[in-house]
Amino acid sequence: MAPRSDKARSTTRVPRQTIERLTIYRKVLAALQAEGVETVFSHRLAALAGVHPAQLRRDLSIFGSFGSVSRGYEVHDLSLTIGRLLGTDRPQAVALVGLGNLGRTLLTYRGFEDRGFRIGVVFDNDPEKAGRVYAGRRCHAVEEIEAVLPSHGARIAVLACGPVGVEDVVDRLVRAGVRSILNFVPRRIVAPEGVHVEDVDISAKLEMLSFLSRERE
Amino acid sequence: MAPRSDKARSTTRVPRQTIERLTIYRKVLAALQAEGVETVFSHRLAALAGVHPAQLRRDLSIFGSFGSVSRGYEVHDLSLTIGRLLGTDRPQAVALVGLGNLGRTLLTYRGFEDRGFRIGVVFDNDPEKAGRVYAGRRCHAVEEIEAVLPSHGARIAVLACGPVGVEDVVDRLVRAGVRSILNFVPRRIVAPEGVHVEDVDISAKLEMLSFLSRERE
Repeated sequence: MAPRSDKARSTTRVPRQTIERLTIYRKVLAALQAEGVETVFSHRLAALAGVHPAQLRRDLSIFGSFGSVSRGYEVHDLSLTIGRLLGTDRPQAVALVGLGNLGRTLLTYRGFEDRGFRIGVVFDNDPEKAGRVYAGRRCHAVEEIEAVLPSHGARIAVLACGPVGVEDVVDRLVRAGVRSILNFVPRRIVAPEGVHVEDVDISAKLEMLSFLSRERE
Repeated sequence: MAPRSDKARSTTRVPRQTIERLTIYRKVLAALQAEGVETVFSHRLAALAGVHPAQLRRDLSIFGSFGSVSRGYEVHDLSLTIGRLLGTDRPQAVALVGLGNLGRTLLTYRGFEDRGFRIGVVFDNDPEKAGRVYAGRRCHAVEEIEAVLPSHGARIAVLACGPVGVEDVVDRLVRAGVRSILNFVPRRIVAPEGVHVEDVDISAKLEMLSFLSRERE
């Protein structure tokens, strides 16, 4: 199979579930790299990722890479290739809105930088916070989003603010060029067309676990 | 140690996707209740939840409740009914392991109590933290899990500790009666059979958004 050009890659509609699995493979590969492992066979990588080996090989075939029969996949190369597809091979600026407990925790969350994301600019609607510096970033007022954000080139925003006024925040972010939103606000956000929202609803996960643990009793 | 299996995660009578949607309906219903709304028609509830009305009616038919043609669903009753199915109609004790930034944020996270979860007991492997009190809970050493946890009756645990030694923590939790784990540790956890694990992988969500925002360029 001929390797795909970057152009072909970016116009290919990769199913969402495939992308979810690719993020898992990359996490497993990062862990292997940290342990000094250089090559990995597909069945071992599949087991670590919790998928069927045939599924893994099918997923990775989108890169035109089938690994080596005798050595398996090169851990470093495969991780880099997946990172390139995900767009996380180069550091990406992320905007953060909301500097409460959760926002401040996210600001110092090492897992972001490890995977190529850097919170470059922060906003809060509390006038007490605007102007103050948090973990090296000066906090701006929410009203400054359109003026301040574009120069940071952030196309991804993390919402960790309160639910009141969140629609206004989203409108401002989108006007400032944001195209993807990671939403920690426990409210459904209706984003304009072409803007992606991923919800992180911790309580919903707990409700799911509550149901599952009851079901086995 | 019990044999480990991934199958346990997916063996459920009510499909997992249905439960996920039920948690969304309950979130929307809670928001409506907060606004003083007493009844809601299925098409409006479906729109707020982001699903097709036929899907909503199918999901809710598992309760044998189809609402009233003239008034729609009773917001309070429906929320209570869903809560009963999820097991969140009565407060449930949750154990928390790890009192770093994230753990301390979760400890004071209002969204938990609002949905019927109460972090009743906390653990950390840092000897400096054991014995100290955090938000009213005395922190115990990880080695005390089996001795301390059962008296709290927690069947759900939240993992917010570091990745090192997390397998030992999981084994201890399961021996102490935990059947569901909400995992914030950026590592895949292989739980014993009959134990459910829900991962909250924030970086993976960002990777997904990174890919989606590139795809439209």
